Amino acid sequence: MELTIVKVGGAVVEEQKSLSDLLDGFASLKGAKALVHGGGRSATKLSEKLGIEARMVEGRRVTDAETLRVVTMVYAGLVNKNIVAQLQARGVNAMGFTGADLGVILSAKRPPKKMSDGQVVDFGFVGDVKEVHTDVLAGLIAQGAVPVMSPITHDGAGNLLNTNADTIASELARAMARVSSVRLVFCFEKPGVLLEANDDSTVISELDYDTFKKYQASGVVAAGMIPKLDNGFEAIRQGVSSVVITNVQGLQTGLGTTLKI
Amino acid sequence: MELTIVKVGGAVVEEQKSLSDLLDGFASLKGAKALVHGGGRSATKLSEKLGIEARMVEGRRVTDAETLRVVTMVYAGLVNKNIVAQLQARGVNAMGFTGADLGVILSAKRPPKKMSDGQVVDFGFVGDVKEVHTDVLAGLIAQGAVPVMSPITHDGAGNLLNTNADTIASELARAMARVSSVRLVFCFEKPGVLLEANDDSTVISELDYDTFKKYQASGVVAAGMIPKLDNGFEAIRQGVSSVVITNVQGLQTGLGTTLKI
Repeated sequence: MELTIVKVGGAVVEEQKSLSDLLDGFASLKGAKALVHGGGRSATKLSEKLGIEARMVEGRRVTDAETLRVVTMVYAGLVNKNIVAQLQARGVNAMGFTGADLGVILSAKRPPKKMSDGQVVDFGFVGDVKEVHTDVLAGLIAQGAVPVMSPITHDGAGNLLNTNADTIASELARAMARVSSVRLVFCFEKPGVLLEANDDSTVISELDYDTFKKYQASGVVAAGMIPKLDNGFEAIRQGVSSVVITNVQGLQTGLGTTLKI
Repeated sequence: MELTIVKVGGAVVEEQKSLSDLLDGFASLKGAKALVHGGGRSATKLSEKLGIEARMVEGRRVTDAETLRVVTMVYAGLVNKNIVAQLQARGVNAMGFTGADLGVILSAKRPPKKMSDGQVVDFGFVGDVKEVHTDVLAGLIAQGAVPVMSPITHDGAGNLLNTNADTIASELARAMARVSSVRLVFCFEKPGVLLEANDDSTVISELDYDTFKKYQASGVVAAGMIPKLDNGFEAIRQGVSSVVITNVQGLQTGLGTTLKI
């Protein structure tokens, strides 16, 4: 089996026009596929309306009990089910998932972490992935189902946990790579990794790990791209056949940045 | 295959203590099973916090675009995923569903309706069930999955619709009755249909349709019970083996009101 896993960022799924373009592109992909989505901006907006203060530390959301309720509603409810319904309308047999559904992704609550500045931060109800149960997913995919995964997992003791969507996509790709050939596509606003942040014509078509580290040191690669690239290279090291960073158009054209070890 | 479908009302799932008791009882049920849940009170609470006015006509919620977003978040996100995670913790391989997931329940937006007082009411994004795709559900259930269904459906054109949970339970039971023996249990706050509304010791253990109609005419049966009973009798007429109305305790003891045609 060949499986394409597409990770799509919040900004793409949260505007109806870009979501619609994405789903057209995703629907046109041949073969087995799965979608992993975020939804952080909608969660932030709902939190604001409810008077819950969003707290971020080094780009990561601190998830208190109220925020966990918000992200569960937004990611697993609003964003996930709208994607599922709109894929069904395109003839894609989508099935919404959190990690709790059929127990596909088990995580552990992150212990309080000492940050670079020495402060200890409790990120709250945040889950680090422990196990991905590929047999269930592989079975459903073999029957033609298309998993649509929201970034919520569970700890096996009845608690939901907020988990980074890029991490879920990478963990899912690595786990599925044990049973099939996996292509992982990170789909975001830019057409790929850019040499000049403001010039979309400077896409790096192939990026190997050493060059990435060199670019990282010299500041060529934008800070927000670094965890995505680290995740991507780790995925290749663990058996994922191909990792591509691109935008909605690239999903159809195949253009973008391909990672190489 | 023998299948037990349990419909549980909002008041039971929205308090952690009664939810926990319910899930203990549900987890202990032998054989194939599915759960259908509501969540209306949490939806009303969230709507209030967001300043969205809840509009009810003859006990049914009018679902404008904003309210559809709220019920999608609450039913398919918050309530559904918490139930799924807590069932997983009890060793039940729960899988959350809306009607959109794997396209299991297709509905049609309800046209504006002329009410008994002559006014025409547009209920908005409310779906009347058109088709239940039992093959998908039967396949998953045969593999040991336990569907947990939230009362959100889709129209096949990309739109989610709000659908009454009692109706979903009945439609699901009738459809599954074509492929297996189905027991439908409505689980709510009272131990069954009561002869005296305030005396829980007056449970009617067996209720046939003629007696129900007699009780309805004489006002013995509470107004809120009537759609549930109408749904229940219709389900039996369409092949459901048994319909029981009970509370969380009755789920385990088997006591409650059993409907007969």
